[in-house]
Amino acid sequence: MGDILRKARLSTQPADVLAFTSSIDVDEWIFEADITVDRAHLVMLTEEGIIAGDVCSLILSALDTIQDGGIAELPPEEDVHAAIESKLISRVSEDIGGRMHTGRSRNDEVATCIRLKLRDELLRMMRELASLREVLIAHAKMHTETLMPGYTHTQHAQPTTLAHHLLAHAGALGRDYARLADAYVRTNISPLGAAAFAGTGFQVNRARTCELLGFDGVIENSMDAVSARDFMIESASAFANLMTNLSRIAAEMILWSSSEFDFITIDDRYASTSSIMPQKKNPDVAELIRGKMGSTVAALVGILTITKALPQSYNRDLQEATPHLWSAATCTLASVRMTAGMIDTMTVHEENLARQATTGFAMATELADALVRRCGIPFRTAHQIVGMLARMDAAPSLETIDEISLSMTGRRLSDSGLDEQAISDALDPVSGIRAHVSGGPAPDDVVRVINIFENTLQKDLIALDARCKHVNDATGMLDREVQACKHVR
Amino acid sequence: MGDILRKARLSTQPADVLAFTSSIDVDEWIFEADITVDRAHLVMLTEEGIIAGDVCSLILSALDTIQDGGIAELPPEEDVHAAIESKLISRVSEDIGGRMHTGRSRNDEVATCIRLKLRDELLRMMRELASLREVLIAHAKMHTETLMPGYTHTQHAQPTTLAHHLLAHAGALGRDYARLADAYVRTNISPLGAAAFAGTGFQVNRARTCELLGFDGVIENSMDAVSARDFMIESASAFANLMTNLSRIAAEMILWSSSEFDFITIDDRYASTSSIMPQKKNPDVAELIRGKMGSTVAALVGILTITKALPQSYNRDLQEATPHLWSAATCTLASVRMTAGMIDTMTVHEENLARQATTGFAMATELADALVRRCGIPFRTAHQIVGMLARMDAAPSLETIDEISLSMTGRRLSDSGLDEQAISDALDPVSGIRAHVSGGPAPDDVVRVINIFENTLQKDLIALDARCKHVNDATGMLDREVQACKHVR
Amino acid sequence: MGDILRKARLSTQPADVLAFTSSIDVDEWIFEADITVDRAHLVMLTEEGIIAGDVCSLILSALDTIQDGGIAELPPEEDVHAAIESKLISRVSEDIGGRMHTGRSRNDEVATCIRLKLRDELLRMMRELASLREVLIAHAKMHTETLMPGYTHTQHAQPTTLAHHLLAHAGALGRDYARLADAYVRTNISPLGAAAFAGTGFQVNRARTCELLGFDGVIENSMDAVSARDFMIESASAFANLMTNLSRIAAEMILWSSSEFDFITIDDRYASTSSIMPQKKNPDVAELIRGKMGSTVAALVGILTITKALPQSYNRDLQEATPHLWSAATCTLASVRMTAGMIDTMTVHEENLARQATTGFAMATELADALVRRCGIPFRTAHQIVGMLARMDAAPSLETIDEISLSMTGRRLSDSGLDEQAISDALDPVSGIRAHVSGGPAPDDVVRVINIFENTLQKDLIALDARCKHVNDATGMLDREVQACKHVR
Amino acid sequence: MGDILRKARLSTQPADVLAFTSSIDVDEWIFEADITVDRAHLVMLTEEGIIAGDVCSLILSALDTIQDGGIAELPPEEDVHAAIESKLISRVSEDIGGRMHTGRSRNDEVATCIRLKLRDELLRMMRELASLREVLIAHAKMHTETLMPGYTHTQHAQPTTLAHHLLAHAGALGRDYARLADAYVRTNISPLGAAAFAGTGFQVNRARTCELLGFDGVIENSMDAVSARDFMIESASAFANLMTNLSRIAAEMILWSSSEFDFITIDDRYASTSSIMPQKKNPDVAELIRGKMGSTVAALVGILTITKALPQSYNRDLQEATPHLWSAATCTLASVRMTAGMIDTMTVHEENLARQATTGFAMATELADALVRRCGIPFRTAHQIVGMLARMDAAPSLETIDEISLSMTGRRLSDSGLDEQAISDALDPVSGIRAHVSGGPAPDDVVRVINIFENTLQKDLIALDARCKHVNDATGMLDREVQACKHVR
Repeated sequence: MGDILRKARLSTQPADVLAFTSSIDVDEWIFEADITVDRAHLVMLTEEGIIAGDVCSLILSALDTIQDGGIAELPPEEDVHAAIESKLISRVSEDIGGRMHTGRSRNDEVATCIRLKLRDELLRMMRELASLREVLIAHAKMHTETLMPGYTHTQHAQPTTLAHHLLAHAGALGRDYARLADAYVRTNISPLGAAAFAGTGFQVNRARTCELLGFDGVIENSMDAVSARDFMIESASAFANLMTNLSRIAAEMILWSSSEFDFITIDDRYASTSSIMPQKKNPDVAELIRGKMGSTVAALVGILTITKALPQSYNRDLQEATPHLWSAATCTLASVRMTAGMIDTMTVHEENLARQATTGFAMATELADALVRRCGIPFRTAHQIVGMLARMDAAPSLETIDEISLSMTGRRLSDSGLDEQAISDALDPVSGIRAHVSGGPAPDDVVRVINIFENTLQKDLIALDARCKHVNDATGMLDREVQACKHVR
Repeated sequence: MGDILRKARLSTQPADVLAFTSSIDVDEWIFEADITVDRAHLVMLTEEGIIAGDVCSLILSALDTIQDGGIAELPPEEDVHAAIESKLISRVSEDIGGRMHTGRSRNDEVATCIRLKLRDELLRMMRELASLREVLIAHAKMHTETLMPGYTHTQHAQPTTLAHHLLAHAGALGRDYARLADAYVRTNISPLGAAAFAGTGFQVNRARTCELLGFDGVIENSMDAVSARDFMIESASAFANLMTNLSRIAAEMILWSSSEFDFITIDDRYASTSSIMPQKKNPDVAELIRGKMGSTVAALVGILTITKALPQSYNRDLQEATPHLWSAATCTLASVRMTAGMIDTMTVHEENLARQATTGFAMATELADALVRRCGIPFRTAHQIVGMLARMDAAPSLETIDEISLSMTGRRLSDSGLDEQAISDALDPVSGIRAHVSGGPAPDDVVRVINIFENTLQKDLIALDARCKHVNDATGMLDREVQACKHVR
Repeated sequence: MGDILRKARLSTQPADVLAFTSSIDVDEWIFEADITVDRAHLVMLTEEGIIAGDVCSLILSALDTIQDGGIAELPPEEDVHAAIESKLISRVSEDIGGRMHTGRSRNDEVATCIRLKLRDELLRMMRELASLREVLIAHAKMHTETLMPGYTHTQHAQPTTLAHHLLAHAGALGRDYARLADAYVRTNISPLGAAAFAGTGFQVNRARTCELLGFDGVIENSMDAVSARDFMIESASAFANLMTNLSRIAAEMILWSSSEFDFITIDDRYASTSSIMPQKKNPDVAELIRGKMGSTVAALVGILTITKALPQSYNRDLQEATPHLWSAATCTLASVRMTAGMIDTMTVHEENLARQATTGFAMATELADALVRRCGIPFRTAHQIVGMLARMDAAPSLETIDEISLSMTGRRLSDSGLDEQAISDALDPVSGIRAHVSGGPAPDDVVRVINIFENTLQKDLIALDARCKHVNDATGMLDREVQACKHVR
Repeated sequence: MGDILRKARLSTQPADVLAFTSSIDVDEWIFEADITVDRAHLVMLTEEGIIAGDVCSLILSALDTIQDGGIAELPPEEDVHAAIESKLISRVSEDIGGRMHTGRSRNDEVATCIRLKLRDELLRMMRELASLREVLIAHAKMHTETLMPGYTHTQHAQPTTLAHHLLAHAGALGRDYARLADAYVRTNISPLGAAAFAGTGFQVNRARTCELLGFDGVIENSMDAVSARDFMIESASAFANLMTNLSRIAAEMILWSSSEFDFITIDDRYASTSSIMPQKKNPDVAELIRGKMGSTVAALVGILTITKALPQSYNRDLQEATPHLWSAATCTLASVRMTAGMIDTMTVHEENLARQATTGFAMATELADALVRRCGIPFRTAHQIVGMLARMDAAPSLETIDEISLSMTGRRLSDSGLDEQAISDALDPVSGIRAHVSGGPAPDDVVRVINIFENTLQKDLIALDARCKHVNDATGMLDREVQACKHVR
């Protein structure tokens, strides 16, 4: 371990212990954020007169060089914060660089860095997820008339359309998007100025660093500010929830591209072959998405278990929690993008879908409903008559239905108005589907829902753009202030 | 298994298989909700002319009797929905009762029931959580001047006040509350009318059942409506997140009531004794809260793992997911209430807290900060001088500080303006705390934060009351419509 | 809460707190075990002269009555141990019944009860799992020549046989069985006599209660004895591992019974129908097994998270862990039995399996291997030639292969000995399979592996019988000693 | 993606998809294992006459160079297996290198590599865990007379000794060791020769590669061989179980080094300081161990969730599972070593421990037991008398006890033989402890248990040495065969 923190207080640490305690390899995630936080803190310290303008100028210039060198050129310390300070001191002397950490602690510093970085991840993920929703809606538009079997229990149930099916996913992903947006609210708030946990005797200006860093507000209580990791749990939960939906899409892509289903062909770009079976074309990307769902559950469990029962305020356990967040974010972002690409490039086998749409007596419910409407019998009775038909594996002729009805209820349905035409109408999937409005596969209704989904998506994108603008404006402001400070010297 | 669904289609099921597949024992949770959904559906069917008014009237009356009998009097069927319908038919004949299930499926029915019940749980939980926040704020008000040690790494770090500490929890729980409120938005939407997953050919009025049940909107796509369980994952995530915060409070209560800490006495009501150690007074309630955090993580993992990679639309796996939601809700609701009671009744040992506040050189940071301010040395240098003092376990006299400073930097700090008075000022915890504004323990600032927290809480309660009113108004409307329908006959 | 433990020491507990802390509803699992532990403890106390023979006799007789009444007739106390003692005292006076708890604590008592009950669960589960292995082996024997497609990535890969496929599961379940047997070793050891955690000043005979309860040894250190729950984690891990394998079987049953695959028909007993789609026959049992896998993962996570970081020795958190164990055991035992029944009663569609076995150029690897053997070309080259064939979707004629080979390697494979006969031999799945020995689908080799699996199963059953006998012998011994003690009076 | 597998069959893959699917960065774990597997496979192929001796010789020599270059010098392919083959072909031509993959698949190859690597991890972990057990036993030997408070519910319960406390952990870790040893049995078995899942038409000798690689046997069924990951779940479960025990030790170290407890000082090597609080000495290593427990639970959940419901045989999801195993192994191995170091170097504050041993009426149980033995009253009565004493916070004088007894039972205990001497004897912790044999803290009994633990440890080490020797012998044999093959040319 480096000496910057320990040298006066503790004897040195063996290499294996330093390797155990150091977070430097995962700190790559927050290296840039740390430099940004340093800059905002320095600008504020100078504005408040806590450090001198020329000191600030020298430090800011040195930080540019440190940033250019990247994390790989930092000296060995137990984390990126200590390493940057150590490098800074070695460049500009302790008398200058030793003043940067005035009025703060690594506790508020790291919490700020994690929030800044997670904010960026959330913004990127929302952008990608909006694209995926767009892809689903675009393909739904193409397939409002594409018949396919609808499933419950992986069994043919009733016919539907591919548009209706794809919109089910679009609807679910819309809620995932809203969760990310809500998580953003509780992420983009500033812990900076909380110091170790008790604030500081230096008169730091928390509102100013909040503004310079593009946060939407400060976390008022300083102990809460450094010890809270609920925002990480919330984002990891939203990722796992979203990945559950992506795993469902992936599972369907795998199923649909099997030779037994043969509903789609996955584009070569998203497929692999075998090292010994040269004919194979495997849905590897979809399988990995399905697998990565498990990795996000793992990450969520990691953060939850690690943060269980920790007393106030900062505990080193928290260091172990953060990498799980980055792991989940990485899995999820890439999976969103891959899903969009895979759906956008798949080939749909429409004839096969249509052929399968009506196998397995898929119109049974329509027939039962028709018996209800035509003959006025109770739904449960109609359900049993048609159930008996299914059991007998008989063609649904008027004669057979009458026979069953007679044995079951004592009367013929042809006496209540049933005729062959009514039966054959009920068994026509296209007309059946047209009757299923109110969120069902009826093409007109699907178009109605598409319009609603597009409107929601547009609103989401406007709000997303506003958030990005707020962050970018802050970045611009900080840059200008930093340049001004550098020229003070 | 009962025969209502199977009798025409499948041969009977052995008792052990029925026991395996039946959800009847956990359906107690949704028995009342199911009756409510039946009523709204029947009112709408009648209004739309799908069933006759006298049929509706007879069914509604029979449902009253069934409700009074409770779930225990239902016949054995594979779930509560089939059991209610079966009982209904046995009371009013299939010709009447067999019409209730027209235009719906158990798939949309169960999804609606779960959402109704979860909505109630969320409303109750928000109410209880608001109370807990109130308790924390109230006790913070009493203890703005109660000195105590602040901890990092379970080590004394800097002095703080009990108010500041309690507000850290209040702040965190405020975010938990906001997550529950957000989860409510994605819970209180109606799947009813989606039928099996493809809508129905009957012209059901989804907006009307939505209104009668107090939902805030409908889930547009019918396949999404029956297969989505993301709302359960979201609530379970919010519960686990909240329980993480409660487990932290519980862990502190356990620690603080140990004889070594002796900061508080837990009231007898929240303590137990031993079966063989008669002197013991054990913090069992706090330990169980800490433990129940693990049970909510378990529930969340259960729902996530179960819903992984399920293709559209309904799959029976979903039945296995729901009990985890109720288990998590039960754990969490009770834990919130117990935490409030435990904090509200604890006895605080103020002298002991104050005595411990200053042990362990807790003012070291203040001293280092004072050296920075007084002598203009860099923070890092001051940190090392004070670190050396700590290592030597020496009293922080001017002489010793000068010695260390001389050996470390080549000059005496007394030459830069340090004197005994400045040192002794820095070591006074009370004046130190007064300087820690901006979210720190300074009593005035704590009062400022209390005001903010109280404002937020008031706004939360106003919004909560509005939600409750919306639900109650709908309940009233449904009751009136049901009464009107019953008198049609 | 009842008064037996608290009355001298603590004031009473409100009803909601008692409801929160009481374990009485889940203690049903250990009610019988607790009575058994009481008996063994009493016999030993009497033998060691710690309580008098007539006292023991009176208590034992009262325990019979308490056992007959069942847990429902116990008075309200915070757990089953206190409730039994309380009931005992109310029956035989404190002067008699108040002596039963001499030399022990609820801490060692509950740990003993859990181990006794879990031991029984493990023995039952091993018995059921042995049956499932038997079923798989029996069906493998019937299907050594039943061709079917073998899959990787849910894509047809190479032909195999149903026997080979079923044996893959049998092999995996053999390891699951071994894990249960190993878990048994670390479960069936006695904590009794450890008292609260520090042993007791009474000269209890731990070896004697160990013997009377059929344990295989004692847990030496008394603090370890009461605080260890690693045996629960181990069993829950073994259950989750086993359920992972069962979920794989279940997923295949669901897939295979889809109309697209149509490989099997699940027997009516293990299927359900729909409330509105009367033609449906749904694989509900398989879906629930797949879902219950998630519930066992949940249970495991619960126990792990709850027991994290608990200091020595007993903590009340442990009470929250135990129900997760029973939940996992219940899920797993039932799922093992259902899987056995489902496989044993399924109808296999052999023609369909055979037809699918050779679709999708499944013999591609055989062809590539044949090119290697016949023409001496490297495997990687053969893989590419056949890969090109697959891409062209061309029939694998000698002419086409020569063309590809010429363009790729500059020479014709017919020049290296390839002829039409060799190609057609390579494409014959039956002869291909016969060559796949060494654990592959070759029928003779499958018979060899069946023999190995049957031998292992027989050895497992012999060891299981020995364990059951040991437990039963101890039960007999305890019964005799109890009868003898009862007649002392 | 590289072209070695795809070039004839599929068009190329974009960079982001390759980044998504490639496992190359985590394959560093198995790079060495893969080369070893290649060697054993080549030796066998040559022995069986499947490839020629000079081909084998050229490939083996090239593999040496590839091994020296390390994974960093491999060309970009989707995994380490393809990358090594690709590099091999680029060095020795496809006509030579293209023959290495004859008679195998990446499916059996990767399963073999993971098992080889995990075997090594398990052997190392057992070695380290044996050391930790040794350290605990060694320190127990030093502290058989070191009084300390024993805890339940983090409350003083009864006095014990530090030896007794440390042995509780040693006992638990002994069971963790046994679980690792059992996991080894189901890890060290060979999947090689299973090829893609169906074996191969080449007459490979599975027993021979098994022998050359130091496996203890082969996995008979080839489909099971490639698709089984239960061994990973089992090891990850054992790691999480072990980490639960380590987290308990870590939690105690943190508690004991707080200024309130002040039982131990953690050595500087295992402590850190603060970036702003120079006096702090923080138990960071212990906190990280506590945290890493959560990371192993995460890893276990990851593997379980990922492998849920995967149909036979290989699926790409499995690639996502493996890194979780390595992550858990790394956390666990390091935590075992750190725990050993931390315990071995801690300073025990014996006076403080002794002083705390008797606070809080810790001898209450002894006193109650003495009343039972001396006066013949029931234990429950004695418990209540002493409970009342505790409630009154009264000194346990004969007079007070008589008063309580009189009011409670109607008689004085002094009439039944109680005197001041008996009371004072019962309150002496040293003599109390001496009476607690049978696994309790009585020093003689502790020595007895130490002997048992040492014997077990010796047996474990002998078995471990035998396993290491078996592996090393195989390594030696493989080396010799490889050298012989290389000289064939």
